Formats: sequence, structure tokens, C-alpha cells
Amino acid sequence: MNLFSPYASLTYHRCEQLAQYSQNPQYMDRRYLTLEHRQANNQVALWMKQAGMLTWQDEAGNQWGALKCDNPNAPTLVIGSHLDTVPNGGKYDGILGVLLPISVLQYLHDTQQSLPYNLQIVGFGDEEGTRFGATLLGSRAVAGTWQENWANLVDADGIGLPQAMRDFGLDINLIRNCKREHNINAFIEIHIEQGPVLEAKKLAVGVVSAIAGARRFKCTLTGFAGHAGTVPMNMRQDALAGAAEMILAIEALASTHQLVATVGKLSCLSGATNVISGKTEFSIDIRSENDQQRDVAFTQIEQKIHDIATTRKLKLEISQTHSASTVKCDSGLQTQLSQAIAKQGILPFTLSSGAGHDTMAMANICPVGMLFMRCDKGISHHPAEAITEHDVEHTLAVLHHFLQSFPL
Amino acid sequence: MNLFSPYASLTYHRCEQLAQYSQNPQYMDRRYLTLEHRQANNQVALWMKQAGMLTWQDEAGNQWGALKCDNPNAPTLVIGSHLDTVPNGGKYDGILGVLLPISVLQYLHDTQQSLPYNLQIVGFGDEEGTRFGATLLGSRAVAGTWQENWANLVDADGIGLPQAMRDFGLDINLIRNCKREHNINAFIEIHIEQGPVLEAKKLAVGVVSAIAGARRFKCTLTGFAGHAGTVPMNMRQDALAGAAEMILAIEALASTHQLVATVGKLSCLSGATNVISGKTEFSIDIRSENDQQRDVAFTQIEQKIHDIATTRKLKLEISQTHSASTVKCDSGLQTQLSQAIAKQGILPFTLSSGAGHDTMAMANICPVGMLFMRCDKGISHHPAEAITEHDVEHTLAVLHHFLQSFPL
Repeated sequence: MNLFSPYASLTYHRCEQLAQYSQNPQYMDRRYLTLEHRQANNQVALWMKQAGMLTWQDEAGNQWGALKCDNPNAPTLVIGSHLDTVPNGGKYDGILGVLLPISVLQYLHDTQQSLPYNLQIVGFGDEEGTRFGATLLGSRAVAGTWQENWANLVDADGIGLPQAMRDFGLDINLIRNCKREHNINAFIEIHIEQGPVLEAKKLAVGVVSAIAGARRFKCTLTGFAGHAGTVPMNMRQDALAGAAEMILAIEALASTHQLVATVGKLSCLSGATNVISGKTEFSIDIRSENDQQRDVAFTQIEQKIHDIATTRKLKLEISQTHSASTVKCDSGLQTQLSQAIAKQGILPFTLSSGAGHDTMAMANICPVGMLFMRCDKGISHHPAEAITEHDVEHTLAVLHHFLQSFPL
Repeated sequence: MNLFSPYASLTYHRCEQLAQYSQNPQYMDRRYLTLEHRQANNQVALWMKQAGMLTWQDEAGNQWGALKCDNPNAPTLVIGSHLDTVPNGGKYDGILGVLLPISVLQYLHDTQQSLPYNLQIVGFGDEEGTRFGATLLGSRAVAGTWQENWANLVDADGIGLPQAMRDFGLDINLIRNCKREHNINAFIEIHIEQGPVLEAKKLAVGVVSAIAGARRFKCTLTGFAGHAGTVPMNMRQDALAGAAEMILAIEALASTHQLVATVGKLSCLSGATNVISGKTEFSIDIRSENDQQRDVAFTQIEQKIHDIATTRKLKLEISQTHSASTVKCDSGLQTQLSQAIAKQGILPFTLSSGAGHDTMAMANICPVGMLFMRCDKGISHHPAEAITEHDVEHTLAVLHHFLQSFPL
């Protein structure tokens, strides 16, 4: 039996236990500043205390734990992720990134080991953004990138963010107190991959190189509606057929440029079985760990779909709805994480993250590193989200190796 | 000035006049068994009388006019179309096919000419089917293909067809009295093309060879929903991208087989900008004037889209939602119509109809012929539906030539 077997079992069990704090008895749903958020914070604080940490909650509702070392000049490492979930979500997305470091600290506590630096663990209150629409509220408060206009955010029940904070015992006017800057030397996040790459590579863990920047667009294609029976194929200006050709072109160019591009939404306006589509709208989401490569690819996509529109006598309008730059993980931290993986006898493998994470916010104030853990079929944000206890054991061991090597 | 110039002007003016009988002051909307249907029937009956005809309304609410000849053994020719419109429709679809023969008869009346056969004109009460869902109610009553279960049809206001008939002064129990069989020797319908072919050929009129039979299908494509940022292109099972490839394959095979096939409706279920489509539904409408050719083409489409599904690891389900056989126009009547066109100095041109018409119902009881008239940009079922007075003049002359040659 591996040293970390009992701690893997403990972590796995605690994920189950935390999943009980859900707004909905039918499925997992724990949103920012709810009763269940408070219950989760309290439970996590208890586990932090059991691992020998001092605990507190900040003005954004983030749950913190600290293990202070004696050296007053020692650096500070923060490890964490988020405790909120999407509606009908899973038990591991975010949560695992808070419970895994607590379990390693529990192991250190049980074996009476200490670290030559300050270690803090954080459970962010909001990453998913499902209550108030804006995402990363917890980590952006810590990073000092909280937006003043978030005071105007309102949830589905009409409760404003300031009121929700008051109900939780917080004061939005004190939100700036959350900001951490010169006192964090590195931030590490462990997260399920939310994709199928590690599973396909048969690897329990992988090192994240960067969090891909995304750009999103809305495309409106206007043709000419017509009777499905009376307009010959060569006289049509079929907006849906044009969109179909564009979707395939986008798919092909994404492969060529080795990045991901997705048409996830399409509306065939006033569509009917016997009417040739006069207007079709669709979205494009394009991501790469290299912003320049992404922009070059999008320029080619843009050119190609405009050519398709011209050939098919369609009018194409494209508007950008979102743009975010890529966040690079610190190369030193990547090396340390890779070495920790190798020490565990696992082939170090590096991949980029296509999804956003708290690490993006934390990158504003310190070097960041991320470790991905394999998840079943890459599924996340779904009740079928699953991990294995065996992978948890590997990840605990890797994190332990990493803690032993930090700071270099 | 052509002989038929004043009658073209008259016809054009009457289309305008009839357009006043609309359920909606904003746009053209005249449905079956409404006050406006009654007003249209009364007005048309008046014009029939002015042209020397005897008039009556049958038990389905169809408006008839008859010009009887002295010979008791003379054959009977019926010419007509429908007087109802779709909501937000045009002024010519159907209506022109009733008013054009009345104008020719007015000309015969004014010039004291008679015909060596019985001529009847009919304005069917329902072709579009927009009030009760089922189409061709008027002509199917005449053809004896009225369905008993139509007694259960209910309109959007909850009024049943039997009640609507009672309110109009009709008795659904007498509907079988409408049936005509051994006493019609031919039926001719004049209709706007509702397509762009005659306009492209620069021809005012054309002879219809057949009304294409249509088959319709619903396709459900199931893939695997995934995060737009985390699933590499080569590991996706993207239902929308699969549908896009299928739409292009359907378009290409339709061209190869020289028929029309349309994907007019597509729903990307629970689609979101940042989610790979897990499920997409779309419709197929395929038509040809040759049923066998259509079925061969569909078999190839079916094979091809199943291949695409297999390659993309998608599940494809196809169900047929509609099937109608092609109705051939009588070859003798086609020849006579072509000769009448040639006599007018226009190149005789034959095309098939992709849209359904009352002629389909009438083909059950007699030989049928159809004449298409050019319409602006092929637009119909829309306020922009337009014709030229010059084309009306040509069509009146062609119809006059035809009446002079009938029966051969």
C-alpha cells in the first residue's frame, strides 16, 4: 500500500461529503454566497484546522487556511481552487483542488513534518459565475481585479451582489481588503482536466503550459428565403447551406493550425422544412495557448468564410463578442511540477488548458502553475464527472514531491 | 394595343380589389370559411355573372361559375385555382388563376363569342391549409378525397371545422355533394410560378409537366457534448459539424440527380458558444417530378449521411414525416398549352412544379394541365409577390388561344 492510499480515500470521501451541500436535492448545485457556500466553507475550514492550519474567510467569501513557518523571510506558496459548482455539475471540478492540498497537509501533520516556507490553501467562493453572470469573482477579489460595476450584478431572483454579500455577513465596501500582492510568491492550482487528453495518453496527471485565450464571434449570414420545391439548386442563396460550408471550413482550419475552434450555437431563423433558409446565425469560439497563432488562424477563417459567402451570394456579418489573452504558466513552476511527476514514476506530459481557471486571475499577482488530473471521458459540469481514487493517490504523491522541492 | 390590354388592366385591378378582403388590416390574410372568404366569393360571383356565367357555391364553400353550351353531349372544361391566402401572403397566388379565366370569358362575352363546350370556373375556398392545418380542403372536396377525420380539425381559436362550416352556412354532412367525377373532361390551373425559372428564361409563361412529389424526413444526430476549449479537434464527436457535412452532401447529391433537396430547419439542442454540440436535429425535403429518381437520390443521400455519421462516431436516426407521389400533367393538354403559347409568339417552355397545387387533387378525377406565369424574383407567400400587367396580357391571350383549340 502506498503512503498516500489512506489520504486518497479520505479525499475521495470528503468530495462525497462536500457534495451534500447543494441548493438542489436532485443534483449538484452550489453557488456563490448561498447557505451551501457557507456550509462548504465551514466544513473545509474544519478540515484545514484538523491539518494544523489557521483559518479565516476573506471579504469575498473565500475560505483560507495557513501553515506558517518560523522563518520570517520565508516565501509564501498558495495552493487552491474553487468551491462553487455549476447547476447539475460534478463533485470534483474545483473542489478537488482545495481538498487535495488539505490532505497532503494532513499527511505532513500526521507525520509531524514541516515546510521551510509558508503554505496557504484557498477555496475560492466563485469561479463558475453561475449566480451573478461574471466569473472568477473570488480569485479576482484576491488578485485585485474586482470590477466596481459588479456592484450592479443581480441574480436570477433579483438579489443584487451587495445584498447577497450582506446576507452572507460580508461588506462589498471592504472587498479591496481581499487583495493580495507582494506576499504571494507562487500560486498552484490542481484541477480535473475537463478534457480527454490525459485519459487518451493513459496518464494520471499532466502539467499545464498555459490557459488558452479565447475569442468569440457572432456571425450573421443573410441569403434569400425561397420555396424548397420551386427554386433550382443552382439559383439558391441558402444561408444554412452557406453556414454548413463555413462550419466545415472552420473545423478544417482549426486542425491545420493545431488549435480548437467551435461552432456551438446555430439558429436557422424562421426555419421551416419546406423553406430555403434566408437567415442563419452562428457562433465561433476559437482558442489557442498562443494568442498570435490564434489571431493568424482567425484571420484565415475570416477570409475563408467571406469567400464562401461571396461565392454563394450571401451577406456575412461578423462581430466579436469576447476576447481574452492567453495566460502562460511560470516555466520554473512547470519544471518543478514535471520533476515531481517524474519522481512519482509517471511520464511528465505538458498540455494547455482550453478552459478558464482561477489561475488566470492569480497570474496578475504572482507566478502560477497548474496540474491537471485525469477525469473520466473528459466529462465535467455534469453529474457524470468522475475520477479514480488511484489517480487521487498519484496526485497527492506528486503534490507532496512538489512541496518538498519548493522553493528551489 | 393588344386585344387583351384592357382585360389585363381589369384583371390586375381586380387582384387589388380582392386584396381588400383580408382578416388583417396590416397584411394579406384570407383564410377558409371566414367573413373575408365570403366577401371574396361574393365579389368573384359578381364578376362571373358580369361575364355571362351562372354561379353557385358548393358545400365546401368553393365558388363556381358556368357557361353552358347548347350541345347536350359537349365536354366540360373546368379552369380554376384558390381564393385563400397564407397570413402575410400576396395578392396573386391562387387568385390570378380564378380571375384570369373570368377576364377571358368577359372578353368572349363582350365580343359575343361562344364556345363549343361547357366551361366552368372555380375558386377553391382552401388550398393553403393555414386555418385548419390540412391543405387542399376545397379541391379535395370536389375530387371526392375529403377525409372523414377532418371533422376533428380545429383552428387556432378552438373553432372546429364543422362549426366553422355551419357559421359559413354550410353543412359538413353534405360535403360529399361537392364531389364531381364523370362530368369533368379536363381541369386547367393557371398559377404564378413561385420560383425564379421563367424569370431567368425571360419567359412570361410556361407549361407545367408535373407537380413534384415530396418526401420529408427528420434527422436526429447524437454526438457527445464537450467543452469547446478542452477537447482537441480530432477527439470530438460534434453533432453540428456532422450535420454541416451532411447538409453539403445533400446539396451536392441533389445537384447530381438534378432535383431539389433542402435542409430548411436545424436545431442545435442546448447549444452554447463554448459547448461542442451533443445533439442536432434537421429536416430534409426532397422533390422530383420523377418519384423513382427521387427515391434513388434519397437512398444515396441516406447512405452518404450514414457514412458521415459512422466516420464522425455520431448516431444518426432518420424518420420519414411526409411522402407524396408526383402528379403528371396530361400530355395532350401540355401539347395544347404549348401550342397556345407558340401562337402567342412565345417560346414554349416546360417546367415542373415543386410546389403543391389544387391540380394535384383534381388529377384524381380528370386529365389536368397547368400554366405557370412568371413572378418577380420567384417570390410568393410574401407581400413582395409581384407580376407585370404585360405578363397578364400575354397569359390572357395564351388562355384564349387554348380555349379556341379545346377540345382537339
